[in-house]
Amino acid sequence: MTTIKLHYAPHTCALASHIVLEEVGADYAINRIDFSVAQENSPEYLALNPKGRVPLLETAQGNLTETPAILLYLAQCYPQANLAPLDDPFALAELQAFNSYLCSTVHVAHAHRMRGSRWADDPVAITAMQDKVPQSVLAGFRHVEENYLHGPWVMGEQYSIADPYLFTLAQWLEADGVALDLIPRVIDHRARMLQREPVQAAINAELN
Amino acid sequence: MTTIKLHYAPHTCALASHIVLEEVGADYAINRIDFSVAQENSPEYLALNPKGRVPLLETAQGNLTETPAILLYLAQCYPQANLAPLDDPFALAELQAFNSYLCSTVHVAHAHRMRGSRWADDPVAITAMQDKVPQSVLAGFRHVEENYLHGPWVMGEQYSIADPYLFTLAQWLEADGVALDLIPRVIDHRARMLQREPVQAAINAELN
Repeated sequence: MTTIKLHYAPHTCALASHIVLEEVGADYAINRIDFSVAQENSPEYLALNPKGRVPLLETAQGNLTETPAILLYLAQCYPQANLAPLDDPFALAELQAFNSYLCSTVHVAHAHRMRGSRWADDPVAITAMQDKVPQSVLAGFRHVEENYLHGPWVMGEQYSIADPYLFTLAQWLEADGVALDLIPRVIDHRARMLQREPVQAAINAELN
Repeated sequence: MTTIKLHYAPHTCALASHIVLEEVGADYAINRIDFSVAQENSPEYLALNPKGRVPLLETAQGNLTETPAILLYLAQCYPQANLAPLDDPFALAELQAFNSYLCSTVHVAHAHRMRGSRWADDPVAITAMQDKVPQSVLAGFRHVEENYLHGPWVMGEQYSIADPYLFTLAQWLEADGVALDLIPRVIDHRARMLQREPVQAAINAELN
C-alpha cells in the first residue's frame, strides 16, 4: 500500500517535490488538484491543507506543506539517494539557505504576476506588480547565477534537493518575461536537468 | 576568540537568530548594520552578503543567510539546547514547514508595508500594498493561531526555534495594523516569550 501521496497542480512549485519523489525512488501516488475549479479551496482539500495551496505531501505520519520542508524530509527519509549533506550542519545550512531564498524571494517575485491580489486590491496596483515581474524575478535568478552553480549543479559537484527546486522555478522564466541571456548558467542547468530520467518522469506524469 | 558574528539591524527578522544564539549559550558577537545610511548596500557589507540584507551569520566555516537556515544550523550545532527534533524527520519537517511559512508568507505580507518598491514602482501601487497589509498579515497569523500553539509553544509542549521566529514577526503586529483581538494565542505567546531571559538579553543588546 502506498503511504505517500503528493497533491499537486501542473505548473506549480509542487513539481520540485514530485521530481524528488522520483529521484529517491519512493513508492508514492499523486493527486491532481484542479485550480480551474478552485479545488484547492474546496472543503475536502482545506481539511487536508488549510492553506489551500500545493504541494501537500500526505505521509503515514501526517501531512506536510512548504517545499523546503518537504524536500529536506524526503532527503532524510531516503539518505541513500544522497540529496542533502545530512551529516554536515554548515553545508546543510547553505543548502537550506538556497531553498529558503527560492521560496521567500524568487517564488514570491514570480507570484506578483498571477497572484497580486494577495497583496493589493487596486487593479492599478495589480498591473504595476505585473510590470515589475521581469525585473524582480531576474534579480533573484541573477543572484543564483552569480553565487551558485559553480559546477554542474546548484551546490557545485553534488546534485541535491536544490536542483529540482531551481529547475521548477526556472520553468516560469519565459512567461515571467525574464531576459534569458543574462542568466546563462541557470539556462544550462535547466537543460541539464531535463536530461535526467526522474525529471522527465515527473513532468510527463503531470501532463497526463 | 569568538568565531560567530551576527550582523543585524534593530526591528528586523535578525532578532530571531539573535534570540537563538542566546538560547543556546553561544559565544558570539553582534554587528549592527545601519539601515538609515544604507549600510546594507555598502561595498563592504555586500562583500559579506551579496543580498544586502540581514541577518548574516559569520561562522568559522563561512557565511550563512536566511533565517530558517540559520535557526536550524544553530539547533544542530548546539543539540544540547534541544531546540529542534533533530532525530525525527517528520517532526523536523513540521517545524521547518512552520518556519518556511513565516519567511515566505507572513514576513512577505508584512514587507509590503515598507518594501513595496521591491514589487512595483507606481506610487499608487505602493499605497495599495500598504492598505492591504493589516488584512494579509492577519491572515498569516490567523493560520498560526488556528493550526499551531496547541500548548505554551508553537509546536506544543516543546520550545523550539519556531518560537523566537514567531515572536520576532509578532513584534510588528501593531505597526502593521493587525487586529490583535483576533489572534489571542499569538499575543499570549508573545507575552510568554518576553518572560524568557534569552529573549530579554537579545532585545536589550539590540536597543543599546
